[in-house]
Amino acid sequence: MMNRQQYMDSLRKLSPVIYLKGRLVESVVDDPMTRPHVNSAGMTYELAGDPAHEELMTTVSHLTGKRINRFTSIFQSTDDLIKKVKMLRMIGQKTGTCFQRCVGLDAMNSTYITTFNIDKKCGTNYHERFKKYLEYVQEHDFMVAGSMTDPKGDRSKKPGAQADPDLFVHVVKKTDEGIVIRGAKAHQTGMINSHEMLVLPTTNLGEDDSDYAVACALPVDAPNVVHIFGRQTNDGRRLDGDIDTGNSEYAIVGGETLTIFNDVFVPWERVFMCGEYEFAQDYVSTFAAYHRQNYGGCKVGLADVIIGSAAAMAEYNGVKASHVRDKLTEMINMAETMYNCSLGCSCQGTKTEAGSYYVNTLLANTVKLNCTRYMYEISRLAHDIAGGFIATLPYEDDYRSPETRAYIDKYFAANPAFSTEERIRVGRLLENMTGGTALAESMHGAGSPEAMKIMLYRESNLEHKKNLAKALAKVGEIEKKQPEHA
Amino acid sequence: MMNRQQYMDSLRKLSPVIYLKGRLVESVVDDPMTRPHVNSAGMTYELAGDPAHEELMTTVSHLTGKRINRFTSIFQSTDDLIKKVKMLRMIGQKTGTCFQRCVGLDAMNSTYITTFNIDKKCGTNYHERFKKYLEYVQEHDFMVAGSMTDPKGDRSKKPGAQADPDLFVHVVKKTDEGIVIRGAKAHQTGMINSHEMLVLPTTNLGEDDSDYAVACALPVDAPNVVHIFGRQTNDGRRLDGDIDTGNSEYAIVGGETLTIFNDVFVPWERVFMCGEYEFAQDYVSTFAAYHRQNYGGCKVGLADVIIGSAAAMAEYNGVKASHVRDKLTEMINMAETMYNCSLGCSCQGTKTEAGSYYVNTLLANTVKLNCTRYMYEISRLAHDIAGGFIATLPYEDDYRSPETRAYIDKYFAANPAFSTEERIRVGRLLENMTGGTALAESMHGAGSPEAMKIMLYRESNLEHKKNLAKALAKVGEIEKKQPEHA
Amino acid sequence: MMNRQQYMDSLRKLSPVIYLKGRLVESVVDDPMTRPHVNSAGMTYELAGDPAHEELMTTVSHLTGKRINRFTSIFQSTDDLIKKVKMLRMIGQKTGTCFQRCVGLDAMNSTYITTFNIDKKCGTNYHERFKKYLEYVQEHDFMVAGSMTDPKGDRSKKPGAQADPDLFVHVVKKTDEGIVIRGAKAHQTGMINSHEMLVLPTTNLGEDDSDYAVACALPVDAPNVVHIFGRQTNDGRRLDGDIDTGNSEYAIVGGETLTIFNDVFVPWERVFMCGEYEFAQDYVSTFAAYHRQNYGGCKVGLADVIIGSAAAMAEYNGVKASHVRDKLTEMINMAETMYNCSLGCSCQGTKTEAGSYYVNTLLANTVKLNCTRYMYEISRLAHDIAGGFIATLPYEDDYRSPETRAYIDKYFAANPAFSTEERIRVGRLLENMTGGTALAESMHGAGSPEAMKIMLYRESNLEHKKNLAKALAKVGEIEKKQPEHA
Amino acid sequence: MMNRQQYMDSLRKLSPVIYLKGRLVESVVDDPMTRPHVNSAGMTYELAGDPAHEELMTTVSHLTGKRINRFTSIFQSTDDLIKKVKMLRMIGQKTGTCFQRCVGLDAMNSTYITTFNIDKKCGTNYHERFKKYLEYVQEHDFMVAGSMTDPKGDRSKKPGAQADPDLFVHVVKKTDEGIVIRGAKAHQTGMINSHEMLVLPTTNLGEDDSDYAVACALPVDAPNVVHIFGRQTNDGRRLDGDIDTGNSEYAIVGGETLTIFNDVFVPWERVFMCGEYEFAQDYVSTFAAYHRQNYGGCKVGLADVIIGSAAAMAEYNGVKASHVRDKLTEMINMAETMYNCSLGCSCQGTKTEAGSYYVNTLLANTVKLNCTRYMYEISRLAHDIAGGFIATLPYEDDYRSPETRAYIDKYFAANPAFSTEERIRVGRLLENMTGGTALAESMHGAGSPEAMKIMLYRESNLEHKKNLAKALAKVGEIEKKQPEHA
Repeated sequence: MMNRQQYMDSLRKLSPVIYLKGRLVESVVDDPMTRPHVNSAGMTYELAGDPAHEELMTTVSHLTGKRINRFTSIFQSTDDLIKKVKMLRMIGQKTGTCFQRCVGLDAMNSTYITTFNIDKKCGTNYHERFKKYLEYVQEHDFMVAGSMTDPKGDRSKKPGAQADPDLFVHVVKKTDEGIVIRGAKAHQTGMINSHEMLVLPTTNLGEDDSDYAVACALPVDAPNVVHIFGRQTNDGRRLDGDIDTGNSEYAIVGGETLTIFNDVFVPWERVFMCGEYEFAQDYVSTFAAYHRQNYGGCKVGLADVIIGSAAAMAEYNGVKASHVRDKLTEMINMAETMYNCSLGCSCQGTKTEAGSYYVNTLLANTVKLNCTRYMYEISRLAHDIAGGFIATLPYEDDYRSPETRAYIDKYFAANPAFSTEERIRVGRLLENMTGGTALAESMHGAGSPEAMKIMLYRESNLEHKKNLAKALAKVGEIEKKQPEHA
Repeated sequence: MMNRQQYMDSLRKLSPVIYLKGRLVESVVDDPMTRPHVNSAGMTYELAGDPAHEELMTTVSHLTGKRINRFTSIFQSTDDLIKKVKMLRMIGQKTGTCFQRCVGLDAMNSTYITTFNIDKKCGTNYHERFKKYLEYVQEHDFMVAGSMTDPKGDRSKKPGAQADPDLFVHVVKKTDEGIVIRGAKAHQTGMINSHEMLVLPTTNLGEDDSDYAVACALPVDAPNVVHIFGRQTNDGRRLDGDIDTGNSEYAIVGGETLTIFNDVFVPWERVFMCGEYEFAQDYVSTFAAYHRQNYGGCKVGLADVIIGSAAAMAEYNGVKASHVRDKLTEMINMAETMYNCSLGCSCQGTKTEAGSYYVNTLLANTVKLNCTRYMYEISRLAHDIAGGFIATLPYEDDYRSPETRAYIDKYFAANPAFSTEERIRVGRLLENMTGGTALAESMHGAGSPEAMKIMLYRESNLEHKKNLAKALAKVGEIEKKQPEHA
Repeated sequence: MMNRQQYMDSLRKLSPVIYLKGRLVESVVDDPMTRPHVNSAGMTYELAGDPAHEELMTTVSHLTGKRINRFTSIFQSTDDLIKKVKMLRMIGQKTGTCFQRCVGLDAMNSTYITTFNIDKKCGTNYHERFKKYLEYVQEHDFMVAGSMTDPKGDRSKKPGAQADPDLFVHVVKKTDEGIVIRGAKAHQTGMINSHEMLVLPTTNLGEDDSDYAVACALPVDAPNVVHIFGRQTNDGRRLDGDIDTGNSEYAIVGGETLTIFNDVFVPWERVFMCGEYEFAQDYVSTFAAYHRQNYGGCKVGLADVIIGSAAAMAEYNGVKASHVRDKLTEMINMAETMYNCSLGCSCQGTKTEAGSYYVNTLLANTVKLNCTRYMYEISRLAHDIAGGFIATLPYEDDYRSPETRAYIDKYFAANPAFSTEERIRVGRLLENMTGGTALAESMHGAGSPEAMKIMLYRESNLEHKKNLAKALAKVGEIEKKQPEHA
Repeated sequence: MMNRQQYMDSLRKLSPVIYLKGRLVESVVDDPMTRPHVNSAGMTYELAGDPAHEELMTTVSHLTGKRINRFTSIFQSTDDLIKKVKMLRMIGQKTGTCFQRCVGLDAMNSTYITTFNIDKKCGTNYHERFKKYLEYVQEHDFMVAGSMTDPKGDRSKKPGAQADPDLFVHVVKKTDEGIVIRGAKAHQTGMINSHEMLVLPTTNLGEDDSDYAVACALPVDAPNVVHIFGRQTNDGRRLDGDIDTGNSEYAIVGGETLTIFNDVFVPWERVFMCGEYEFAQDYVSTFAAYHRQNYGGCKVGLADVIIGSAAAMAEYNGVKASHVRDKLTEMINMAETMYNCSLGCSCQGTKTEAGSYYVNTLLANTVKLNCTRYMYEISRLAHDIAGGFIATLPYEDDYRSPETRAYIDKYFAANPAFSTEERIRVGRLLENMTGGTALAESMHGAGSPEAMKIMLYRESNLEHKKNLAKALAKVGEIEKKQPEHA
């Protein structure tokens, strides 16, 4: 396992092509715009070496028997599923933002299952290949970006029916050595500070779309791969000091990119699906269920910070009203409900034929659907408690300036037991965590709400529920009764 | 273990004093007003004998090693806690209403823990006494009413400060043989068709309230005990046939009573707390957490029936609109979220010093708080889908009458694939399950919402959350930085 | 204008055929099951004669210049539209339930407009006919049931495509004297205690459905008309005294019927549409907008009573907590928001070509959509405040019985400043107003929620909104800019 | 009246001291950070000269009979109150953000009423003074910042009890010529691009706080006045081009400042309250009601733009699903409900003793309380419809760069009927309007939610509601009945 420093050093050895605000990023570790994302992912390395967190952060490889970072593991029990949730909440509490590494974890776990299933039906050899790749990842403790979401183009059309065939990643060439892929992946969390990426399909596919049925792994700095960094809320503040960004150490969300594949070569030993379109749907829903499970972990960790910020703000403001207590309680209830949903789908996980453990699909989909509403509501209540102050705070430069600092210290003072700077800092943190990109991520990460709804409806066994109702309403007895009243 | 018939026979041997609409109930089994409640509780006996449900419905006594009905068991693992939830959901699906027996189960489990704790500190012998009583209950497979909620009188005053000291049950006399109690318990679910009742305190108590710190067991037909049956929504329809009541077999909620103790004698071997007021608060919150856990089981079973009814109604009405699907999905999400909350607090249960397992208090309180909102919202959406028809359905008598039946069959016909009677019956079931008493029970059973909020706030460790926020906002670093900018 | 007594006397002169629980109702005024509905409608006559309410309750006929009950008027100004809302709220506060007479009022106003429009385009003479009928209604101060909702059968099919053509009212014969209609109307509010009914179509119609395009007036006791009374929540309690029904004087909702037309003859002078199918859609949406306007009047009157009941219950219970105040405030906000919506659509009303005033359609549809949610939420909060007591209250018979009364008085006592009976009575009122039929009426009266949604979407001018966005996003300037960056 | 150009020119003649990011702003008109706020306020001048908007934008002065900008008027009728709402919605549709000028309008109207009331009781001469000032404002068509919110310090303490007496503006000296004030005002909307400011108290005051009872007018560049500009969401993007800011012409919210009064002299002819503490509460609640009325105007204009953006995004994305239509409809319903609330409180406005018109206080408070929830929910639904894309859009610089533009055009393409740039631009607009400062302003502008709740509870006449309930429950008849059953 690597520690934080080793992780950073290892990133320095890579040379991905990353565009950001019209320029190339030379070093993701040292660039002030990307450094906080590295710090946040770095926490997954740092805590793994901390004995206090060893149980949550590490486990034993079922392949090698060696101790590995949990982020490179295949789940071996429902206890592993539960520990994943607890680990995510704990790290989220420490970073206050996305630490990016769960996407690869879920991609690897869904690939583990899917390759097994493909091989079983098609006689291919993907599963062994993938196990070797997995061992390689575990051995080096790599951070793997789970690379799923295609740009999708016209949402009313399937991949093969798009005006531009490249709007979903697809195989454009197969050789003896490997395949060549073209297209792009959007919203790539943690991509720029990962070592590897694991590409998988994003939607169910039909026979005509078999070129789009491709899964494979490659380094983030593979030739012909280009990353364009997305602009985040208040990104520019990172260059202005350490107050205004709110969370200067870890910034916000996961440093998402548009990652472009300009005819990228992938050798066969890194290809885990190639043409088996009929497995795409299960692949996607398996990944999605694992990934939706997470939101009752990491987002609850973030909610803990927001709740703590709001409680602190009330104290700084000198407000002791019952409505504050009530609002905090509502926030707590939403946070713990999301956590419960993740625990529930985990404890009801089941063993797959591949031998690994998988969450309960129906229950996992509640997690994320609730998250798309609760994180907005938690943010709303936090704004309510914090006061209008978070919308009109002065610039850090004005706070640093001798001409205005005294005014700010004087007039933004509230409860005299606390300093004005403390109040401003927590206000800025709260601002950071409750607006813009952070909210949108709660909405669309791991799939948009309608995707959860489709799964909930599909998995709910509505026929069974109808039969329960009919039995109690004695509908079955109508026929034999009719004569009595005829 | 008893089966359903034995249960009914056993009830016939008891002679509780029950008033209902100005008359005495002669036999709870045979009286058409109380029979459905007996049927519903009877399901807990019937299913225990069904091999298909043996795993959920029964377990092995940790006292005797004999197989017992799970409703008389002490939880020995988190798996037992999870099975409880699953059992409750499954029975709820079959009765469509309260089956009453969980109150005693939770009362016994909280008494098991509390007696152990009292003995440990006070050197009393309650725990052994209670284990003997428990063995007696398990041996006879008794249904035990958990008797907790006092009438409470003026809510702004503690028990001893009430104008009438009897508004909370209290000890009025102690003799060598036992104690004499006076007062009443309100909202007594399943009381009239139970064998025994287990009385416990309802609120935290101070030194002045020590007479109110009393827990004990007694038969429901003990001398000087009087029950007054509460009036339920549409109760009179039970006498009118089998359609209008909606769920003619099992009726509605739990047949609650006001149960009065007119100086009732309880022998010492049935007394499990007597004066140890300082344990009342934990006793209450332990019972409450166990009991709140349930609502993601039984109510989700009921929600399954409501969702099934609504889905069936849409089909009967011939409505195939996307909004119906969306509303059903929202109902499913709420139901499964409640279920997840119960699973979550169960899988995070912990072993008590007494050796039994207890749910996670914080997480258990989310279950019921969500229930107080979701069951109303589920009912609202069910009304939306069902159509105005559920509010203006004709009388069963008119449906039975040759003069009007043809009109009703003709004009309440909708989707021709189904009979009018089927549509009416499911409509009546839905009406039964979504209004009046049923809703109020979702609100106040296992405590009113504010009781959950108090627990959520208390258990949430807000200080920890504040510290998380301050760490990210770098509040701790302010002091050492100040000089730089001075 | 009639007063309350004259209204009752006038009803005694009619002889409608009404089935209720397998029997015929001999006198709607004297039958204890129907009497409360008569009382409630009677309030519209009683208050009209009260000088304190003259301004709201009466107006001057634009046809005759005589003072008339506002319920028989055609709106002559936005002020009339606003006064309608205020009148409805005021009466609702006094009856605590539906007083039924607004349906006819809205039917008459929409017929006034529609007949004018048909005549203008088709050269028919409906408008003059209708004005004569209106004069007749005003002169006798008749209560007119607005008879709109057909049974609808299979909701996926239009009238003419139903398996049974009678599932929508239609013309089966035309003679020189008049027409013969067949079918039924469901959910007929106030029908049994009206004098007249005004039949109008319930949905938009195509060319094939022209027989269904029929509007006409007839007495409620016309030959071949049969009414079947719908069963309401807790209906049987009306026979048991005056406590348990909660609102013994006025009962609940509007005494809805299924009204059947077994080939009923209507003379031409009472026919206001016959075959002009292309006017059905506007007729329906005009009626609907007027009718949806009402819910921020009458339902707010009812909400006032529910809020008052909840506030009283908190006082009776001795609860002074801040959460009660907060919940009451939320209820008040919902009530006043509905009221505001009704005022808004009224003050933005416009003059029609027929000379009368019509509400703003878009704004009127918000009223009822909000109502379908707020009345449930208000009820939920009322249950929360009232306590579990409303679900387990004893029977009035037990309260009257010397054997149990003392127990009830003793153990249901709370705040000593109030009597137990007061607490029970208000509890029963609250139970009456917040469950079952009352809720379903809030949902489906004046159309189901999806009907409002269709109108809101249709009337919202989405294209205009898109253009606003594009202007601010400078989308129009893209083309000319492109070259700069090419 | 001034036009837009004249407004800008007039600002150039002023020299307020404004700090922004550690520097002084030389010209609010020309500084790219403040220019958009000037543009937005400028719209109130521009539209006033547009004949198409003359009716809404202008009126006749009741003082001089001359045509004036409505923003300098005193409301003379309920029609004026309604036109205010319509004007605000219309401008909001064109700016997509705050145009700042309503604060002064409301401050002037509440000062008009309050000065009349003070004079009447105290024999002072404030009203005449204020009318002269008003004439001066009307004559020059000045923009007046309504300057109300004090920093407030420790929220648990009144002004005089603060550790620092300056945390509320107060009089520190009175001379023959005038008064000297000290303190600050926070969240000063539009301050930097106003000509004048009208200072008024922010809270109810006791006898000990009489120095805090001060109202007065002064130029924004009066000696010893210092403004510190608040940092807004994504403020830095204004310097980066015209795409990323979303609304490059008008930016976001109202350019709020902390405005400090370092012993500022105000001549007596500009003092409108000085020591009459007993009028502070009514002054504040009058201003607040007027100001809360606005939010169903301007915010609905903004909601129109958000709805339009979301509808456009769905089209650009190629999504035609029913759920999009449903979500748009929910957004429309919320927007129109807020609008209705503003119309309702306006049409129920009443004439004051001063002769001007005032909104209905109870009804006005619903507007803003709903706004604090609806704008968040509208934003949430907009995010849902728009897709995750709004959180990961690339930088404008990358879009302008030849090295990456083609990638962005290719991979952010969706529905081929629209350009990628169009999709990006509307996405950025939507991002701008639905996060951070914009949301916080919806929450706290015109007072925080609890302030509305206090008013709703106070104005609701709960006693009347309780009496309505008691009448229906026949509580008054209990006494005379008791004997019957005794």
